[in-house]
Amino acid sequence: MRRIAVDAMGTDAAPQPEVEGAILAAREKYAEVILVGREEALKRELARRDARGLPIELMHASEAITMEDAGAKAFRRKRDSSIRVAARLVREGKADGLISAGNTGAVMTTAKIVLGVLEGVDRPALAAVFPTSQGKAAVLLDVGANVDCKASHLEQFAVMGEVYYRVIFGAERPRLGLLSIGEEDHKGNDLTREAFLLLKQSPVNFVGNVEGRDLYNGRVDVIVCDGFTGNVALKISEGLVEAVSSLLKEALSSTLTSKVGGLLSRRAFRNFKKRVDYSEYGGAPLLGVRGVCIICHGGSSANAIKNAIRVAAEFAEGRINEKIERELARASLRQT
Amino acid sequence: MRRIAVDAMGTDAAPQPEVEGAILAAREKYAEVILVGREEALKRELARRDARGLPIELMHASEAITMEDAGAKAFRRKRDSSIRVAARLVREGKADGLISAGNTGAVMTTAKIVLGVLEGVDRPALAAVFPTSQGKAAVLLDVGANVDCKASHLEQFAVMGEVYYRVIFGAERPRLGLLSIGEEDHKGNDLTREAFLLLKQSPVNFVGNVEGRDLYNGRVDVIVCDGFTGNVALKISEGLVEAVSSLLKEALSSTLTSKVGGLLSRRAFRNFKKRVDYSEYGGAPLLGVRGVCIICHGGSSANAIKNAIRVAAEFAEGRINEKIERELARASLRQT
Repeated sequence: MRRIAVDAMGTDAAPQPEVEGAILAAREKYAEVILVGREEALKRELARRDARGLPIELMHASEAITMEDAGAKAFRRKRDSSIRVAARLVREGKADGLISAGNTGAVMTTAKIVLGVLEGVDRPALAAVFPTSQGKAAVLLDVGANVDCKASHLEQFAVMGEVYYRVIFGAERPRLGLLSIGEEDHKGNDLTREAFLLLKQSPVNFVGNVEGRDLYNGRVDVIVCDGFTGNVALKISEGLVEAVSSLLKEALSSTLTSKVGGLLSRRAFRNFKKRVDYSEYGGAPLLGVRGVCIICHGGSSANAIKNAIRVAAEFAEGRINEKIERELARASLRQT
Repeated sequence: MRRIAVDAMGTDAAPQPEVEGAILAAREKYAEVILVGREEALKRELARRDARGLPIELMHASEAITMEDAGAKAFRRKRDSSIRVAARLVREGKADGLISAGNTGAVMTTAKIVLGVLEGVDRPALAAVFPTSQGKAAVLLDVGANVDCKASHLEQFAVMGEVYYRVIFGAERPRLGLLSIGEEDHKGNDLTREAFLLLKQSPVNFVGNVEGRDLYNGRVDVIVCDGFTGNVALKISEGLVEAVSSLLKEALSSTLTSKVGGLLSRRAFRNFKKRVDYSEYGGAPLLGVRGVCIICHGGSSANAIKNAIRVAAEFAEGRINEKIERELARASLRQT
């Protein structure tokens, strides 16, 4: 079984969701778990639950990085933070991967510095995984690791995203699109027009430009863009789902006045929420670092943590990083 | 009453929604309408309806631009297109504004060339208007007129969006945000960081960086970004609303099996759709051209056309363009 280090001080309600998620994952035999954080707090949390016989270890870390800490500064100042201790476990081969629901900037900085980057990768990229109306998952990257990108970065994102999708979702030849503002080849800005030409010649299964609406209709499996556009895309989606949910609740409660109606609508609403629940996909992988690093939402539930642990173990098991290095080497050979 | 020229060959179902929308608008006394398009077709469509005594005129245009035509090429080749004839009416003072649901690229090109741009404007911008969960409208610009922008363009967009919001939605001092990937001042890419500094010194009510989720929560009234990001944002929103609608229909129909339940859910669903219906806001104004130009969705209903005619009349009535020129002159004085 793979060993996954869990930063236990990351979620808004830490360490409760992390400890509970670790127990759920260990029970399902997804992985052996090392919970990293303040030992006292972790022991207390574990003692409240039935964790006997489960492959869960504790690793003390005296500090925690908060949402207020700036990424790079927090890295330098808090040398014994739970994120950094977890990353060190991965670098030293004592864990096969790490997950954290902490400050995204700090996790990315820490992973890049402590783990380093893969051969052939200029910039690691954060990949968001979400459901489409076809019932399949789609992967969008970069969603915030690199705000200003060159076309060659987008090409690397494409290779990394393609390998990730292939291994985690078992698709033989994932369809890849470039996020732009029209499907025609010439549509886009300076960056995407240059990236379009690179992707045309790359070994990935590039289907061309896609538009914002293609994120959720399952037309493509992997979508690449710069980290600014990707982050805006992700946050708009979150904001819109929230807004729609609240409008919908109003509409339902104003119409379904009878008890029966209210009950039915609550059930329908729960079904709906489940279908658009990102937590089923277990967080966003940071692709391109030398190791496995899955970043979860600060509001993650125990269920999201459990799924992130599963994905981290599958990531390590699937040798995604070896495959990324091999594909990037092949792509660069082709160019020379 | 203001006179509005309606390109009657623009929607997917043209000229039916245009003619019906014109009748609805004229009946409500929003404006006098000049329907521009193939006279035969327009006469036939009008004859089917009761338009007696309404202030509706016809203006013949022998050509129509299709969705397949490229913007600039269509402008050069189709000299008697309905879009171009409508724009000419505005330039010659025979109409106070125009609306079109045709090919967005062609409408923008035509309006820019035929009408020209306002004093102080480098780049006209397309502004999308949509509902927020607070029940207020929000305006996002640019959503596709300029894919590669300079910081000074974003500053002009801010001034234009602010004036538009003030006049159309009667807000005295609309709150303006810069679309970025974090609220802190330094967050963003090269473009937004530079624009942030310009906006800080500008006379608009700049509240700072906002994130994608702030589009729909009503935190700000006007949001500026480059046309690439804005177009992606808009199309993601459309795609997500579609995906959510289909997931929701499934969830509702799988739960509410009884006839009563089905009826209730359909009603709730209709209420919900109405709340997120963009057509209530009557299309996207192209701000910065010398005249009034409202661009509607190709799938616009008669109701959307009616509202666009109302907005075009309010735009002209509110002297938005004079105010934009005055504010831009004031902003540039401040800089020198």
